[in-house]
Amino acid sequence: MTTLRELGEREVIRRLARVLGEPPEGVVGIGDDTAVIPMDGDRDGLLTSDAVVEGIHFLPDTEPLRIGHKAVGRVLSDFAAMGGVPAWALVDVVAPASTEMERLESVYLGAQRLAGAHGLRIVGGDTAGGPLLELHVFGVGWVAAGKAVRRSGARPGDRIFVTGSLGGSLAGKHLDFEPRVAEGRWLGESGFVTAMIDVSDGLIADLRHIIEESHVGAEILGETIPVSDAARSLTGRDSALARALHDGEDFELLFCVMPDQAGAFADAWRKRFKLPCTEIGRVTEERGRLTLLQCERRLDLDADGYEHFRSR
Amino acid sequence: MTTLRELGEREVIRRLARVLGEPPEGVVGIGDDTAVIPMDGDRDGLLTSDAVVEGIHFLPDTEPLRIGHKAVGRVLSDFAAMGGVPAWALVDVVAPASTEMERLESVYLGAQRLAGAHGLRIVGGDTAGGPLLELHVFGVGWVAAGKAVRRSGARPGDRIFVTGSLGGSLAGKHLDFEPRVAEGRWLGESGFVTAMIDVSDGLIADLRHIIEESHVGAEILGETIPVSDAARSLTGRDSALARALHDGEDFELLFCVMPDQAGAFADAWRKRFKLPCTEIGRVTEERGRLTLLQCERRLDLDADGYEHFRSR
Repeated sequence: MTTLRELGEREVIRRLARVLGEPPEGVVGIGDDTAVIPMDGDRDGLLTSDAVVEGIHFLPDTEPLRIGHKAVGRVLSDFAAMGGVPAWALVDVVAPASTEMERLESVYLGAQRLAGAHGLRIVGGDTAGGPLLELHVFGVGWVAAGKAVRRSGARPGDRIFVTGSLGGSLAGKHLDFEPRVAEGRWLGESGFVTAMIDVSDGLIADLRHIIEESHVGAEILGETIPVSDAARSLTGRDSALARALHDGEDFELLFCVMPDQAGAFADAWRKRFKLPCTEIGRVTEERGRLTLLQCERRLDLDADGYEHFRSR
Repeated sequence: MTTLRELGEREVIRRLARVLGEPPEGVVGIGDDTAVIPMDGDRDGLLTSDAVVEGIHFLPDTEPLRIGHKAVGRVLSDFAAMGGVPAWALVDVVAPASTEMERLESVYLGAQRLAGAHGLRIVGGDTAGGPLLELHVFGVGWVAAGKAVRRSGARPGDRIFVTGSLGGSLAGKHLDFEPRVAEGRWLGESGFVTAMIDVSDGLIADLRHIIEESHVGAEILGETIPVSDAARSLTGRDSALARALHDGEDFELLFCVMPDQAGAFADAWRKRFKLPCTEIGRVTEERGRLTLLQCERRLDLDADGYEHFRSR
């Protein structure tokens, strides 16, 4: 017998996906930011769900508005990473019977405010008792048929970009982040982007998802990584750059652009958004290899973003 | 400050629904078996979610195949109660890191088998660590536009029917029930049915949902209630009839048929299904009043089906 802890989250998901079997033709199942399903007309449906659990994604004393914000924000960020448009959501809540109603109402208010700001309508859900507060948000969105931006479209030579700045989200951003919904939709519709993911596990871990799904490699330039003020101000054993590379839950967008369009893309982005967008490297042919160029040295990077179940 | 326990599940849901506000025109939100949303073309979308939590919906020693079966079965039963067709699902799992992978794979196998038997495709989900095993199943289905069978359509004079037999589900049916998907779809498409719900909280509690949403009353005939063998064989303080009236999780379909069509309906049902379907009473004009006719006495019934959060 093998426990979930011994396997780690990625292997657990791989084995559960094996039980479920291959999705039908034309359907994207497990392994991208959302599932993609055919719908009537000229749209594809996007389905995603995310859990936030007390003690893991927030703490017992986290302000309830921020808990609801984070729960909905994670789902919105998934839609953004597919270039999609949020539409409908259900919220399952698990809570101890001793929970104060006013606290739960504040959690929902935080969820509702962020959802409303991005056109996501919460239309139902379920409630159950349990030892810890949890929210499970299930979202339905859409994208023009065939236009979902997958993790698997990166090609050697593509330039790698990331929005915003990275690292140190534990100082607050992991609860208060603005999901890049408008940016993701624009990126999807612009035609510039070959592959995209949101930075939830950490820059390196999520870039690894892209290179694995795309069967390519990548090299990133250490000096170009947009290190956040939060990463710089946090003290501890990790350098600010290490935080930007490995910390999870920044919920920025990480994506690839064809090399001959990188300049036009950067110009178009600047005209459209104030949010910074930084070129941090390029896709290579060295399948599965992820390297950091830093001070004229080339370092091979392991994926060591956050993995559920496994101790760090 | 007020706790969830003090309020009980129905009031908790009512207050959370108030935070979320009214759904947009043409959308069914909280308060039916599924949400109903407009889609492209000639279909409406159905969205539902259900949680099963260790210690509440199953026990630590429940066979894992049955846990997965129950989790998916609840969602399928919701679609059935709307006259809908299941299509897509996501499964969020919460599990202790010490869970054996083989156990979790069996849970998923139970989920996958029942889903596959009813055309529901599981295409994704999320995983998280937590103290107890939980599954949250989110389902997407569809129904012909405007044809979802609501709880709110019952009219005075309608005859009340229920499928199968009731009570004693704790003896095993709550884990092994067959969701009435084909029956629910046929009922919806037949045009006979004015209102429908699945029996999850208990016959009386769920009939109360129908009369409240429909602004009517109902009377049921004690001698006609299809009491299950399980209800008769269980011993304890409750009579078999009381179990049939109040036990939850039978996942049968409870519905109303216009009086002048009741005979034609019963004939059509018998031609189509072997599953028994029993007329148990009628809808009245006495708004909010729910009575049981038994041995020439008329008893007023309170809703006392299962309520989460509240101690019984």
